[in-house]
Amino acid sequence: MIYRRHIQIEFNHCDPAGIVFYPRYFEMTNSVAENFFREVAGQSYAAMMRELQGVPTARLEADFHAPSRLGEVLEWRMHLTRLGRSSMDFGLQAWCGDQHRVSVRLVLVFVEGLGAPKPWPDPVRAAITAFMEAPDA
Amino acid sequence: MIYRRHIQIEFNHCDPAGIVFYPRYFEMTNSVAENFFREVAGQSYAAMMRELQGVPTARLEADFHAPSRLGEVLEWRMHLTRLGRSSMDFGLQAWCGDQHRVSVRLVLVFVEGLGAPKPWPDPVRAAITAFMEAPDA
Amino acid sequence: MIYRRHIQIEFNHCDPAGIVFYPRYFEMTNSVAENFFREVAGQSYAAMMRELQGVPTARLEADFHAPSRLGEVLEWRMHLTRLGRSSMDFGLQAWCGDQHRVSVRLVLVFVEGLGAPKPWPDPVRAAITAFMEAPDA
Amino acid sequence: MIYRRHIQIEFNHCDPAGIVFYPRYFEMTNSVAENFFREVAGQSYAAMMRELQGVPTARLEADFHAPSRLGEVLEWRMHLTRLGRSSMDFGLQAWCGDQHRVSVRLVLVFVEGLGAPKPWPDPVRAAITAFMEAPDA
Repeated sequence: MIYRRHIQIEFNHCDPAGIVFYPRYFEMTNSVAENFFREVAGQSYAAMMRELQGVPTARLEADFHAPSRLGEVLEWRMHLTRLGRSSMDFGLQAWCGDQHRVSVRLVLVFVEGLGAPKPWPDPVRAAITAFMEAPDA
Repeated sequence: MIYRRHIQIEFNHCDPAGIVFYPRYFEMTNSVAENFFREVAGQSYAAMMRELQGVPTARLEADFHAPSRLGEVLEWRMHLTRLGRSSMDFGLQAWCGDQHRVSVRLVLVFVEGLGAPKPWPDPVRAAITAFMEAPDA
Repeated sequence: MIYRRHIQIEFNHCDPAGIVFYPRYFEMTNSVAENFFREVAGQSYAAMMRELQGVPTARLEADFHAPSRLGEVLEWRMHLTRLGRSSMDFGLQAWCGDQHRVSVRLVLVFVEGLGAPKPWPDPVRAAITAFMEAPDA
Repeated sequence: MIYRRHIQIEFNHCDPAGIVFYPRYFEMTNSVAENFFREVAGQSYAAMMRELQGVPTARLEADFHAPSRLGEVLEWRMHLTRLGRSSMDFGLQAWCGDQHRVSVRLVLVFVEGLGAPKPWPDPVRAAITAFMEAPDA
């Protein structure tokens, strides 16, 4: 299944060339992942903070295919490619209409306390597995 | 040769877990590249903007080895791995003392006007080549 | 009339104390103003950029009544207090449920070309005046 | 006495109009205050975080006199106007050469634990008082 979020490109995202400044794309990928955890995995970042848990990024790759401009709306599409014992790989694509702007691959790790990786909690694993196996609407 | 910049980790860079929020690392990599172009390549981003030139990022890869915390000072080390006709590959590493925190590989492309890649201007190519060939101090 | 926007507090907005970092509130006030211009005044920031126009902030005041936390949703309420020849004063309040978090007063100026203030274009003035005079829904 | 910090305006600070986006000025004011606490008051934000202390901003006012552009270096000058039992008022000015760009007035409050204001610790009060009374170099 694919998780979708729309993000409107505002002043805040753009550089002096009038296009999205690349670090802002990663504010967007973090926002998409954050909303995925709250809405799909049933574990919000706020709840994780209270329990001294987190999902830091271990690795990412990004390809910037074409620039995005002020006033456009990006559709971010996220899909999971692998659910490990305590990690997760996913791919994100940003589209504006039929134009593919950005591709990102992220690896997240579930950690607790002083930063040691921990297995995903069972309800989180179950929710994510169900999402991975569901057909796209 | 290696280009070095020190960046102190301030409130602005940190997330609720008290560690650097990963999009902020890319604000840092952009700052390192921006200062490299001004100081080494002899072509500042401000000068490029005036001439409708730019060096957008085409691709990046990053590995986050260990978290960085408020109050630490990171040493960023940048080296060039390839200078193409209109692109450039470089590697950046962030260190805190003897701890390796982050590795990033960036591919930049020189563009003019409406975004078409252009060959590097001769003085820029000469300055960068001299930098690549110089021994590290 | 009151213009409303909801903004969810995400990782990106929060500091190591787990509360909104105050510069991020101004990213929010800019976003509210930007959406107001597009939706109400009929003049988007993207359109203004193409015509070398803008609405830089000349002055602001802010009172921070109580902190806002990760996962909360803020309702921003914006009202206009004065429409001058080339400036505009407005007030913004951020609420979370019945808790008043932040009050901001902003003065914007309409400029063209090299930064000289210009009178508001007639259609913009008409749209904003109609908004000011409309009763709140 | 006046506390000074130089900040170079980089891509990260600028908007599509090529000038500093106003929320970025407040990232700068926070950075100036953060370095003042570490260097002058003898209490870094990192140390405060470990003790569950903080200095949230209660109020600010800002006047933007003229825009600042990519590649310029701002000199921020900070002086204290009042040291209360648990609060502090200070003024900041950003200059570029002999051009006055921005004036900010900030009120900070010292808090502990769940956010209740607390008197400044004696060593902090002593260090700040000494700074206020010292002649400018």
